[in-house]
Amino acid sequence: MSGEDEKKEDHGSGWFSMRPIGYVRSPYRHTSEIPKGLGAKHDADGSLEIQAKFEAGLTDIEGFSHLIVIWVFSRSEGFDLLGTPPSDNRPHGVFATRSPRRPNPIGLTVVELVSREGPVLRVRGVDMLDGTPILDIKPYLSNVSPERLRRGWLAEAETRAGPSQ
Amino acid sequence: MSGEDEKKEDHGSGWFSMRPIGYVRSPYRHTSEIPKGLGAKHDADGSLEIQAKFEAGLTDIEGFSHLIVIWVFSRSEGFDLLGTPPSDNRPHGVFATRSPRRPNPIGLTVVELVSREGPVLRVRGVDMLDGTPILDIKPYLSNVSPERLRRGWLAEAETRAGPSQ
Repeated sequence: MSGEDEKKEDHGSGWFSMRPIGYVRSPYRHTSEIPKGLGAKHDADGSLEIQAKFEAGLTDIEGFSHLIVIWVFSRSEGFDLLGTPPSDNRPHGVFATRSPRRPNPIGLTVVELVSREGPVLRVRGVDMLDGTPILDIKPYLSNVSPERLRRGWLAEAETRAGPSQ
Repeated sequence: MSGEDEKKEDHGSGWFSMRPIGYVRSPYRHTSEIPKGLGAKHDADGSLEIQAKFEAGLTDIEGFSHLIVIWVFSRSEGFDLLGTPPSDNRPHGVFATRSPRRPNPIGLTVVELVSREGPVLRVRGVDMLDGTPILDIKPYLSNVSPERLRRGWLAEAETRAGPSQ
């Protein structure tokens, strides 16, 4: 099955149009319920309910232990180029944080795939609100070499916060 | 600086509108030049040229060694729910591959940040075409635990291909 019929770019404006391929089911109804800040654990169970018309696109996904979910901060309005994240008391550029107030309100979460039931993926590690629109799912294929990974202001904030984090 | 003025969802249709925050500069002018398939190495140097109006959003990004770049397959038209990737000779669901022919033509690349010059990020590991629109940049914060990572059909294809890969 293929789809050639739908417009994805308005060439006049340079904007791109994206549609939900499905929705997240999560235990979180309000952003205040989502663990945030240093040491926050994301191990909540949830599911990714993909629209029936896209179900064939999930073929063979069961073989991957982890998936990259790209989704929309659909309750976020506007953006801030500088903001202070819950994990620090200093402002940082939006592209150096996971803030929801981004020029494009795109969120990204790596989840563990627990099982698949037709168009529904049972996953662990959701940090999205219930009802969040999903734009894309990709297999998680490789890690960054740990000895080369530097985590900037986040590592500094963890150091300042001390060993309890 | 913040922006509240721009529409991001057409509530009537359920589609979301996304705009380029900048463009990729890469050595690749045609998709045929981009290394693909098993064992493909992505170590090309390139840059992410962010629009001047978003430059403040890059504050403190220099501290991160790796960035997640979310971009648009702007030369891809339409989608296939099943396709055979360059790394295998068997078809897989689009959400289990990195195919450009996706319901939403969103690409994702993890790059190494080499340096920043104002609104321009020099990076290593680009696999995008020159001129690719960038939608978002996020800091790469953590790896999946290697002992828990399974890579599905890709690991199987590598095994079939033998030790030369």
